[in-house]
Amino acid sequence: MDKNGDFRFLKACRGEPVDRTPVWFMRQAGRYMKPYRDLKAKYSFLEMCKTPELATEVTLQPLGVMDVDAAIIFADILLPLEPMGTGLEFSAGDGPVIPRPVRSRKDVEQLRLVNSEEQLGFLGDSIRMVRSELAGRAPLIGFSGAPFTLSSYMVEGGKSRDFATTKLMMYEAPETWNLLMDKVCTVLIDYLKMQVMAGAQALQIFDSWVGCLGPGDYEEYILPHTRRVIDGLKGLGVPVINFSTGTSSMLGLIHQAGGDVLGFDWRVHLDEAWKQVGFNQPVQGNLDPIVLMAPLPVVKRRVHDVLRRAAGRPGHIFNLGHGILQHTPVDHVKAVVDMVHEYTHG
Amino acid sequence: MDKNGDFRFLKACRGEPVDRTPVWFMRQAGRYMKPYRDLKAKYSFLEMCKTPELATEVTLQPLGVMDVDAAIIFADILLPLEPMGTGLEFSAGDGPVIPRPVRSRKDVEQLRLVNSEEQLGFLGDSIRMVRSELAGRAPLIGFSGAPFTLSSYMVEGGKSRDFATTKLMMYEAPETWNLLMDKVCTVLIDYLKMQVMAGAQALQIFDSWVGCLGPGDYEEYILPHTRRVIDGLKGLGVPVINFSTGTSSMLGLIHQAGGDVLGFDWRVHLDEAWKQVGFNQPVQGNLDPIVLMAPLPVVKRRVHDVLRRAAGRPGHIFNLGHGILQHTPVDHVKAVVDMVHEYTHG
Repeated sequence: MDKNGDFRFLKACRGEPVDRTPVWFMRQAGRYMKPYRDLKAKYSFLEMCKTPELATEVTLQPLGVMDVDAAIIFADILLPLEPMGTGLEFSAGDGPVIPRPVRSRKDVEQLRLVNSEEQLGFLGDSIRMVRSELAGRAPLIGFSGAPFTLSSYMVEGGKSRDFATTKLMMYEAPETWNLLMDKVCTVLIDYLKMQVMAGAQALQIFDSWVGCLGPGDYEEYILPHTRRVIDGLKGLGVPVINFSTGTSSMLGLIHQAGGDVLGFDWRVHLDEAWKQVGFNQPVQGNLDPIVLMAPLPVVKRRVHDVLRRAAGRPGHIFNLGHGILQHTPVDHVKAVVDMVHEYTHG
Repeated sequence: MDKNGDFRFLKACRGEPVDRTPVWFMRQAGRYMKPYRDLKAKYSFLEMCKTPELATEVTLQPLGVMDVDAAIIFADILLPLEPMGTGLEFSAGDGPVIPRPVRSRKDVEQLRLVNSEEQLGFLGDSIRMVRSELAGRAPLIGFSGAPFTLSSYMVEGGKSRDFATTKLMMYEAPETWNLLMDKVCTVLIDYLKMQVMAGAQALQIFDSWVGCLGPGDYEEYILPHTRRVIDGLKGLGVPVINFSTGTSSMLGLIHQAGGDVLGFDWRVHLDEAWKQVGFNQPVQGNLDPIVLMAPLPVVKRRVHDVLRRAAGRPGHIFNLGHGILQHTPVDHVKAVVDMVHEYTHG
């Protein structure tokens, strides 16, 4: 909160000047924190997502120990898949598994649309509980996977190296692909609106795997759908952060897809990426998450490098280029928050 | 071979005009071909690499069925690791495994330099045998992994998702990292020279994983070493192709590292990448390998798109943005060769 009673994170999302650069971290609630691991020993990941008391506890864990400028609700990017009918499981170490992958026109036709308030209502409950616990200390971010990332998980059935099955659906059966994306987008808009209705003050869509595509594919098969979701969230009064990785060769297209804020990964210098999309476009990023595990003098040099490239322009939110990794020292994460606030305290 | 008795592939490497755009494919000898799979049922991958008769047979398999403009010697990008002392194994499905990964200063100090003629002489024998069999039908390309890709395999011990161990060696112990890269470069120069002495008419270095790095890391920890290798090969009279993936946000730095030809992946439009490095710089690429599995009309549209972006400028070699995948139909690969030659036949 700045001295005028507004959140510096939300001001930066609007491109307004702030007293310090706001900072939060993707996956700031997670395995690198001992209280999280203690809970995880007792409950499965999905149990934690679906139990508002647990999700609330986890969401607030980082805010108890560091001065981050936003909370992000504890959830998974793939939660909408389960009520759509594909199933969703998490195997230890192997990440998400989709038991009934979507491969044919018939599979896509059988996917169900979702009433998020009813079928994913636990997330609304978590958001309401977190907002109540936060009592105005920090703004709360809701989120989901982006249309491509959700659809590719459904088609591949889990993580993939080359996304061959997904790309071949685009190339061989574009109408099936578009129907899939259409259904996913409809669900996503409903799901993200539900999060705002419950109290989310900003939204982020994670397009974690869209960087497997060339710019031609992105433009033809992804952009119209992602834009539809982002356009569909306008009028809710909350900023939408469009985050993607591996997309530094097509930032112009990402910009066309929209987003009040564009989130970059670490594969591009922040100033060069920002220049490409225009300095009046708020941006978020972009420290390599691995740097957090390096010795503190290295961390400091690299944090300062990102901030030097941001050059104090309004509309920068400091973050990593992807989520915090499991073996990251908590002290380093805390130190980065302070480094950002100290460097930008003007 | 063009009508003047010179190879159009080599002419394109020098930026000279050609009668048709030359085309070859990374991993054009491999599992997508039945004769390869038949051999693989009888011999291990490393046996095939190390037995000149087998390597020669495999190298020539694609040339027997399609009109590619170059052969590439059958080998693995990681072959130099074994004589350096880390070991090298291939597990079914999981890719390369390095039994004795390099983690400490002491590990790096114990790495051995290599006399390629003696310790990797089987590859020289294969190259001589292929040259003899080819009898001037097509030029032969030798290759290796690039310094980063070799070093990261040594440090990680196999494939990696985030390359945390490698990056942390750079950040925590840069002198250890530089010593490792220094040894790898010394071995690489010797190894690639040996290939030219044996008859390789062009060289390609594969930096398959360097796209995990941001441009700052590339510039500081990789570029000087890669440049040293490429500079060290000058004067051999053969072109060097510098191929990397995931590097579209730092093509300027890749260009600084050098290479008579720069190889791009599919994550960037060919014309935009080419413009960045200058149209007088020969380039290679860049169809998404998955496209080869699509229906032929889609393949044709995408091949033509790459060629349209190349715009008939001298110095374009058609290739994929990465290697041919296992389930690619041979007929589609053959068809692409013909599409390229037909489209560019002026």
